[in-house]
Amino acid sequence: MQAATLAAGLGLLAPAVLAQNNQSYYDYTTNGNPQLDQRTLATIPLGFPDCDNGPLAGTTVCNTSVPAYQRASALVSMMTLEEVVNNTVNTAPGVPRLGVPPYEVWNEALHGLTHFYQPDNGSFSWTTAFPQPILSMASMNRSLIHQIGDIISTQARAASNAGRYGLDVYSPNINGFRSPVWGRGQETPGEDAFFLSSLYTYEYVTSMQGGVNPVVPKMETVIKHFAGYDLETWHGHSRLGNDLNITAQNLAGYFTPQFKTGIQYAKAKGIMCAYNAVNGEAGCSDPFFLQTLLREEWGFDKQNGFVSSDCGAVYSVFNPHMDAPNRTAAAAIAMRAGTDIDCGTEYAYYLTPALNEQLIDRATIDRALTRLYAGLVEAGYFDGNSSMYRDLTWDDVVRTDALNISYEAAVEGLTLLKNDGNLPLKKSHDCKSVALIGPFANATDQLIGDYAPTPNYIISPLAAFEDSDWEVNYAFGTGVLWRNTSGFEEALEAARNSDVIVYAGGIDLTIEDEALDRENITWPGNQLQLINQLSQLGKPLTVLQFGGGQVDGTALKNNDNVNSLMWCGYPGQSGGQAVVDVLSGKRAPAGRLVTTQYPAEYVNQFDQRDTELQPHGSCPGQTYMWYTGEPVYAFGHGLFYTTFDEEVAGNSSGTFNITELVSQPHDDYEYVEHVPLVTFEAKVTNTGDMDSDYSAMLFANTTSGPAPRPIKWLVGIDREATIPPGGSCTVSIEVPLGVLARANEAGDLIVYPGEYELALNNERSVVYSLTLTGNAVPIAMWPLQLEEGATGNM
Amino acid sequence: MQAATLAAGLGLLAPAVLAQNNQSYYDYTTNGNPQLDQRTLATIPLGFPDCDNGPLAGTTVCNTSVPAYQRASALVSMMTLEEVVNNTVNTAPGVPRLGVPPYEVWNEALHGLTHFYQPDNGSFSWTTAFPQPILSMASMNRSLIHQIGDIISTQARAASNAGRYGLDVYSPNINGFRSPVWGRGQETPGEDAFFLSSLYTYEYVTSMQGGVNPVVPKMETVIKHFAGYDLETWHGHSRLGNDLNITAQNLAGYFTPQFKTGIQYAKAKGIMCAYNAVNGEAGCSDPFFLQTLLREEWGFDKQNGFVSSDCGAVYSVFNPHMDAPNRTAAAAIAMRAGTDIDCGTEYAYYLTPALNEQLIDRATIDRALTRLYAGLVEAGYFDGNSSMYRDLTWDDVVRTDALNISYEAAVEGLTLLKNDGNLPLKKSHDCKSVALIGPFANATDQLIGDYAPTPNYIISPLAAFEDSDWEVNYAFGTGVLWRNTSGFEEALEAARNSDVIVYAGGIDLTIEDEALDRENITWPGNQLQLINQLSQLGKPLTVLQFGGGQVDGTALKNNDNVNSLMWCGYPGQSGGQAVVDVLSGKRAPAGRLVTTQYPAEYVNQFDQRDTELQPHGSCPGQTYMWYTGEPVYAFGHGLFYTTFDEEVAGNSSGTFNITELVSQPHDDYEYVEHVPLVTFEAKVTNTGDMDSDYSAMLFANTTSGPAPRPIKWLVGIDREATIPPGGSCTVSIEVPLGVLARANEAGDLIVYPGEYELALNNERSVVYSLTLTGNAVPIAMWPLQLEEGATGNM
Repeated sequence: MQAATLAAGLGLLAPAVLAQNNQSYYDYTTNGNPQLDQRTLATIPLGFPDCDNGPLAGTTVCNTSVPAYQRASALVSMMTLEEVVNNTVNTAPGVPRLGVPPYEVWNEALHGLTHFYQPDNGSFSWTTAFPQPILSMASMNRSLIHQIGDIISTQARAASNAGRYGLDVYSPNINGFRSPVWGRGQETPGEDAFFLSSLYTYEYVTSMQGGVNPVVPKMETVIKHFAGYDLETWHGHSRLGNDLNITAQNLAGYFTPQFKTGIQYAKAKGIMCAYNAVNGEAGCSDPFFLQTLLREEWGFDKQNGFVSSDCGAVYSVFNPHMDAPNRTAAAAIAMRAGTDIDCGTEYAYYLTPALNEQLIDRATIDRALTRLYAGLVEAGYFDGNSSMYRDLTWDDVVRTDALNISYEAAVEGLTLLKNDGNLPLKKSHDCKSVALIGPFANATDQLIGDYAPTPNYIISPLAAFEDSDWEVNYAFGTGVLWRNTSGFEEALEAARNSDVIVYAGGIDLTIEDEALDRENITWPGNQLQLINQLSQLGKPLTVLQFGGGQVDGTALKNNDNVNSLMWCGYPGQSGGQAVVDVLSGKRAPAGRLVTTQYPAEYVNQFDQRDTELQPHGSCPGQTYMWYTGEPVYAFGHGLFYTTFDEEVAGNSSGTFNITELVSQPHDDYEYVEHVPLVTFEAKVTNTGDMDSDYSAMLFANTTSGPAPRPIKWLVGIDREATIPPGGSCTVSIEVPLGVLARANEAGDLIVYPGEYELALNNERSVVYSLTLTGNAVPIAMWPLQLEEGATGNM
Repeated sequence: MQAATLAAGLGLLAPAVLAQNNQSYYDYTTNGNPQLDQRTLATIPLGFPDCDNGPLAGTTVCNTSVPAYQRASALVSMMTLEEVVNNTVNTAPGVPRLGVPPYEVWNEALHGLTHFYQPDNGSFSWTTAFPQPILSMASMNRSLIHQIGDIISTQARAASNAGRYGLDVYSPNINGFRSPVWGRGQETPGEDAFFLSSLYTYEYVTSMQGGVNPVVPKMETVIKHFAGYDLETWHGHSRLGNDLNITAQNLAGYFTPQFKTGIQYAKAKGIMCAYNAVNGEAGCSDPFFLQTLLREEWGFDKQNGFVSSDCGAVYSVFNPHMDAPNRTAAAAIAMRAGTDIDCGTEYAYYLTPALNEQLIDRATIDRALTRLYAGLVEAGYFDGNSSMYRDLTWDDVVRTDALNISYEAAVEGLTLLKNDGNLPLKKSHDCKSVALIGPFANATDQLIGDYAPTPNYIISPLAAFEDSDWEVNYAFGTGVLWRNTSGFEEALEAARNSDVIVYAGGIDLTIEDEALDRENITWPGNQLQLINQLSQLGKPLTVLQFGGGQVDGTALKNNDNVNSLMWCGYPGQSGGQAVVDVLSGKRAPAGRLVTTQYPAEYVNQFDQRDTELQPHGSCPGQTYMWYTGEPVYAFGHGLFYTTFDEEVAGNSSGTFNITELVSQPHDDYEYVEHVPLVTFEAKVTNTGDMDSDYSAMLFANTTSGPAPRPIKWLVGIDREATIPPGGSCTVSIEVPLGVLARANEAGDLIVYPGEYELALNNERSVVYSLTLTGNAVPIAMWPLQLEEGATGNM
């Protein structure tokens, strides 16, 4: 069933499976911050200022001919210090005296809307739940990311217009999924921070905001978490207190380039500082990140951007980081370092005392709120109902294209890891029943992942199979973490009674979540035991591996009786339908892993807080770029149902002078490093007998520049829509100079002269030989360091 | 003769005294920079881009609906690296291929236009020469400063429209006139950097630019020299190599607040980094000044501002500062630190090599030029002839108000230091001849000072006297620096033949100039010897003391036969007329010294490069705020011809809570520290028998806060126009909270609770008792310092 008919068939307003409001947001009260109250604004509607008849009428903030920052500044200047301070926190009460309504900075939109005022029924009782980003990105389809962002922002604007949502979102989450134990890796586009996270960031931000440098931002995106945040609780080390030592080389090459892309190239209007410290300074009190990199190097001030703390992170500057001697000082240094808005309540309580203790000045407090309001001014907050996007309503949420795209994203992300020909399932007179077994077999909420929107329906694998022409024998079998085998027999019985077996398991939020890292990356509970028993029944067995992080599937890979293995991530509200449609061959898989499936021992080989990516000591290197071990399934791995022949199209080699490249005009590009250098082209022919999408990753490797060199690194992706048997298409990937850069020890991103290969996929089926001549050329220098004593503090 | 009739009487286009084009600009070739060519652009006309028919037509830079920075960025993106690099220097060749005309960044407008393409005759062969700022500021008339700036910018725009001038000026010079030996103190508004230099900067910038945050800047002002520049060649120490140790306290309290005012409050579009180093880092390669203070703290990026080096200062980063190992590195670190434009040629020669040596990236080079062009875009450079200010022509230069204001500024600045009743001169049947003696008696160019505009006429004192009804006996007498007495006898003879004697001497550009400090502050040459001989003739003797810096007049002060002493600064093109009109009583003096006249030994008591203002060691303290010795004539000293009675008007005391003050709304003010706190009012009655202007300085002193405390500091000025005998007026000076702040050792500007007095003039004739309660409150914090290792360089 295609998604368009799916939505109609299920009945848009009478969904087959109603989702429960099962939000499990992080409980801050358990994490050492006694003052951060539970978020309360979701119980009251928001509103827009009335510039026509309210107290603000006729004031500068309502004057659309004045530049945004000046309008915001004029508004803030009308407030008392107390009024300013009260509004520097996420749940801002507004200024009733001035007709400034309450505003909630904290809105989430990771893969659909959360954290908004949601009545129990009627308009806005649901919005679309897309797959988790890690699955959507596995599609290799950047247009899809853009479509999703466009839909989410439309729904967000509609909710905002209805008083249920703000004009900014604390999304996306773009930290590199470096350590496989990270509980929030599911929220990210994977482990390739330099290229893929940047690409994802660009598409998400520009689609959510309505373009690059839009006159009116559709929705302001607050990219997060800046920087170095990629662990929650590993080995009992809280994210709130982690202090990561990161070299300039890895900061520039891995931990910050996606933020640079978000701010400098995509012009994100917001950024969130992280809980953790880097090199001794807490994320929200680090002027190197929040001023030097963000504002000086990346030009954040030019786009009226604001910084929000992660929720509770201002408090964390004091406890546990102790980068300030007390909460008052922590509030002051966080704001002075550049954290404009406190997601929390520290600023509300401690900024005025801080001023009285001569730790901060009024102008800095005013500036912080002005930055927030400058963005709201740009977004039309003060411009009345006729301004752009203010006509979006619930009717714009109730559209089938949103449901279609959610379904489509799930289909496109599904990644086939192993297949001996078992898939797609071939239904016939003799093969008509399926045993559907496992903790995800009847999953609903489990399919959504964290930061879960509440959709109008969730289609479980069981519901989708039941809606198909297969006979289904369902058995729960075991839970994700179960040790007891009480359900095994029922499962085995169901399997014995069926022609084929599908096991749906993996990991869920009970094992990977915000505030919850994994301690190992093995299959949890007794799932492997059950799968092993199922595999001994002599029937075709497919294993569906749900969850954001990879689990070591060595046992499944090596077991010839496990015929197929497919990674399903968190596929969203139509996830079950997508899975069943791919299993049944209605759709063909073409996803590729955006993380490495490491063997289980990997996470025990080194301290997961060790951020040095390059191999050293007992650490075999981190991410596919540096990992010297043998992955179970490699980054970029993904099988098709059909076979493709790939051959060179166009040039297969080229020589370019770097200096000339970097010296050229770059008319249609803001930055010269984005001008396409090579257009890699391959002719791809479907040599099998099934329709299939084609997906591609293009990797670079080189002998140029100083060692150590990465094994390879990603420089391009592509996805081509359905290619019929015998059909072919040309995969065309533009490679700009910038993606060939590598960070040196000083943190400068350098393109070195020498020999490069651009190779298609892990199989290197097509290779382009690239020679760069001339001098090594920097793409971006790491900031100059202040000399000792040059600051007047002698 | 009033100025209006003066101009007419002299004939606007047939001036009585034609100025010679006697520009003596600093010769860079003598200062160790072999590459900095003499400025050549003054020989070619400039022009505006043609957005209608040129190659740029239809491109983004010509699209007026796009924000300025994006327009500029689009322009720069069309250029090759070579084209970009070529235009990052002051004499920019433009890009012929793209129809971008040459542009000259270096235009000067200190007290009238210089450095522009000036034909020998006809239109723009002259423009108005105002007095040097140090004299104009002595008027205590902030409106006058504003009028002057408004006229200069009109003339600059007219010259720009004629292709003879740019759209920015390397003015004003706002370094504090700390050391009296400084050769360029004449260019400044004096020694009170915290209040008076800030006030001057605000008026100059907002008048030149056409307002605060104007939609179209009239003329972009590049305030200079940032920071700590206030010596040229003292004791053989070149400004190019000076490295001043300045505490955070004095940086915040003295060396930078006027720049803060210029950038943050007045929104100057440009700033110039200085030759000298501060605390080990050359001015043009110091990210603390050029990024942290300027862009982070003061918000320079918000106003599309650009930084220019002082001319040759990029080279100085290498030699003599050695803050870079060679010229290539110097160019790179200067630009990376935030110096966008090189007044010089280093960038043109060394940026491309720097990129090839991986010292800088293309984006940073592009950004630098984009910043310059963003300002030009704002100023309408690409907007065609119909844009604002493009209708100004030579007719707008040929206006008598410019000449009137130049005359008026001279009159208002003249400062009477001593007078026993001799002045004004009382012409009568028995007293009708004047002996006019000395090196300034027939001065023309000498009246202008440095950065000399070429006016249509210059009225020497001799010419003005000859144009009066006095009989004049002129004798040169001696030169400024002469040791030979060959002219004495002629002078004495002239004096003997006259009823009154006027000696016009002092110092000129042969002793104080750019690249020329004084080694002592005594009267130079044998002038005192001649004056002494003149004083023994038994005739009324007036000494006119020309020049910007003060000279120790102890001998004149103590000599009862020197009846009058008047400081005349560099009074500009009508200076002689102004002097004679004041001497003759047609106008009355009301100027006040904006520098301290120190005794001669002062400059030998400590190293003039010692920037610690507070008394220490052999240094008796610097500026009137800290000087513990006895000045010859104090800062603020200035006599009237009439007598004034000053008495309290309104309140004479008040108590305010600082916390409440800083917590109030500040609606009509961008910053709360500018909201008036006290309106100091005094009733001033002319109790003498002559018309006179009245001028006032208001000083604060306090026992609050930590020691050491300044003796007093300036918090307000005023000038009231002509008050007739018996007449009175109310002097009203608004004192905002911000001017009561003092910098603490950390560099934070703090207002302390406690007792203050606001006292009128040095005489303290009216005192307002101010009590501040509550907590000490910061007005502006010094920037947070980065912690060791927090920058990724581990």
